[in-house]
Amino acid sequence: MREIGRRARAAARRMALVPGPVKDAALREAAAALRQAAPAILAANAADLDEGRAKGLTAASLDRLALNPARVEAIAEALESIAGLPDPVGRAMDSYARPNGLRIDRVATPLGVVGVIFESRPNVTADAGALCLKAGNAAILRAGSESHRSASAIAQAMSQGLSRHGLPADAIQLVPTRDRAAVGAMLTGLDGAIDVIVPRGGKSLVARVQDEARVPVFAHLEGICHVFVHAAADLGMARAVVRNSKLRRTGVCGAAETLLVDRACAATHLAPLVTDLIEAGCAVRGDEAVRAVDPRVAPATEADWRTEYLDAIIAVRVVDGLDAAIDHIETYGSHHTDSILTEDGAAAERFLAEVDSAIVAHNASTQFADGGEFGFGAEIGIATGRMHARGPVGVEQLTTFKYRIRGTGQIRP
Amino acid sequence: MREIGRRARAAARRMALVPGPVKDAALREAAAALRQAAPAILAANAADLDEGRAKGLTAASLDRLALNPARVEAIAEALESIAGLPDPVGRAMDSYARPNGLRIDRVATPLGVVGVIFESRPNVTADAGALCLKAGNAAILRAGSESHRSASAIAQAMSQGLSRHGLPADAIQLVPTRDRAAVGAMLTGLDGAIDVIVPRGGKSLVARVQDEARVPVFAHLEGICHVFVHAAADLGMARAVVRNSKLRRTGVCGAAETLLVDRACAATHLAPLVTDLIEAGCAVRGDEAVRAVDPRVAPATEADWRTEYLDAIIAVRVVDGLDAAIDHIETYGSHHTDSILTEDGAAAERFLAEVDSAIVAHNASTQFADGGEFGFGAEIGIATGRMHARGPVGVEQLTTFKYRIRGTGQIRP
Repeated sequence: MREIGRRARAAARRMALVPGPVKDAALREAAAALRQAAPAILAANAADLDEGRAKGLTAASLDRLALNPARVEAIAEALESIAGLPDPVGRAMDSYARPNGLRIDRVATPLGVVGVIFESRPNVTADAGALCLKAGNAAILRAGSESHRSASAIAQAMSQGLSRHGLPADAIQLVPTRDRAAVGAMLTGLDGAIDVIVPRGGKSLVARVQDEARVPVFAHLEGICHVFVHAAADLGMARAVVRNSKLRRTGVCGAAETLLVDRACAATHLAPLVTDLIEAGCAVRGDEAVRAVDPRVAPATEADWRTEYLDAIIAVRVVDGLDAAIDHIETYGSHHTDSILTEDGAAAERFLAEVDSAIVAHNASTQFADGGEFGFGAEIGIATGRMHARGPVGVEQLTTFKYRIRGTGQIRP
Repeated sequence: MREIGRRARAAARRMALVPGPVKDAALREAAAALRQAAPAILAANAADLDEGRAKGLTAASLDRLALNPARVEAIAEALESIAGLPDPVGRAMDSYARPNGLRIDRVATPLGVVGVIFESRPNVTADAGALCLKAGNAAILRAGSESHRSASAIAQAMSQGLSRHGLPADAIQLVPTRDRAAVGAMLTGLDGAIDVIVPRGGKSLVARVQDEARVPVFAHLEGICHVFVHAAADLGMARAVVRNSKLRRTGVCGAAETLLVDRACAATHLAPLVTDLIEAGCAVRGDEAVRAVDPRVAPATEADWRTEYLDAIIAVRVVDGLDAAIDHIETYGSHHTDSILTEDGAAAERFLAEVDSAIVAHNASTQFADGGEFGFGAEIGIATGRMHARGPVGVEQLTTFKYRIRGTGQIRP
């Protein structure tokens, strides 16, 4: 593993200097190589699936693992779309002259080496690897044992494409799955060879990475996202946005898990909101006020306010106005994405200012919490930490910066 | 300590919402309170100095610890200057509309709770505390045992001033020195109550913090700064900049520790550069080529290339051109501040691009590595890490950001 780290660091130093158009051409070539290698990738994936079935993986895991020609094509297209993004390296973030004539520029530079640890989705090999490269970084990827053959086949095809444009072969390295200690070694940072770790997978993986990592981590442990229907909410809008926030896709981190309804509008708004959800197939757990409007509402316990269901289940609570809603979110939330529905601009501004989450929204679905929806083109994940990256982590968040000073012989008095 | 953490987190939540003008008025009031409390602060400092002398502190430590009326006035002025900086909270870092009509703003928000661990300089109480408050954060300060009385007197005066403008009393908390386990507890993050640690002191403190901290750290372990005199350097400029980089102040982290001279100009440039330094009282350690020009040059060993002298000593090496200089800096440097002296613009651009340091300079002294010189007004330290803050850490680097989405009822298809 140390050798992998050393090679990644050397590759990162070369990657940092690769011009944007060369990176983009290499990514397009990698997409072409992936399309060409589709039969080999699908064969590797079939072997992974066979082993997964034999091991008794759940249907959901097998679905995450499965590739087909359309999914391979989608992976190739994702690479092309990353190639089409503006180069995040070299951006002038600030530029000014000092009274002594020194010109100071703050320019974006690559982060260095990104470690990505993922589970069953083999497309992460391509997506995460491409995002790292686009930002001038080297990547060390660790696939779950269940997806290793697929990930290797994808990595191999990509490397062929990248090397045709002179990118270092070690810019994307896949750690051998048979090395059981690899994840632990990556979490220690490989003697300073890894600058940041991105876990891509379930809660237990993220929790382990956050607990054990001695290097920075871009991640969210969970997305306990709230929709607050304020006293001045438009009922029609609230019905549409609540349903979408909860049910458009229930398994994504931006799905709403808790609905808060202002007591001041509960008499008119609560029953239709709850009925909508139940009739759309969602289980509702509520406090007493919520149970009073529909007998199908199960009782909510304290644990429900802290639960990320990732399923067609929602916890509903009636709260005493804006302050109580903000208190609830600050107490039970996970600082991911929270939305207020109201026609009262002042209430909305207070919510946007006071709720301390990576993403706060007014009159919009929580399901917009996604790099694509933000216009980032792609994201490597969503971070709820406060350092460096927060919210969707796109190519810009995979860079750091340095200061360039240009002088004419200035000395400091 | 947990109670201190809990109170800091509560104070941070309130601090985040304090309007800029209120923070500034409170900082000015704190400056006035400091001036008024000068006799009490000087009495506390005298007691610290007495104890320090009895304990046998070095003269340098006693000097760092000592206050006098002029130094107290300087502390008060520093607070006023921080009050005069633009508010870093609420800055729009990005603002755009999506095709679906969603308006997305990325706005600067406070980091949260900043832990500052320092040694003998009592002014850090005021400087670091004020920078944290200006950025809307709460601060937990841990003074060295040698400066505790002085730090307490300063903190008490500041708190009086701050509370007159309604800032939470816990926005700046000083940890009792008698709690020996406090530093260790802070390094674990106090159960998530501390977002970042800033060590202010000698190398052993910084090393301990970097080794043990389970939360992010803004720091530099050392400043092994280089000046590279390129083949095309102007000799007159090189003589002035080298002397200034090394000798203006030898104890600051931006002081040059190693001089690299291009072999292509060594015949003309090396002797005058070395002679200048020796005649200005600097000990020179060099490789064979350097020793050949002056018998007073001592032999340099491998260890010299890795040493931060913080003294009137310099290591000098003749290198084979730009690539060798960059290699030397990447091998032995500490990614702090490195400068190239040359009239060759292409060589300068390569140096600025390829040397991976927080600050890279062309034709300027390394001693400009300082938040004040960057126009930041003040800095809490200089960071050589790659995450979040890099280079001088001013009030902007003490903020994070969040995304605010404003919609009109958008749902995601």
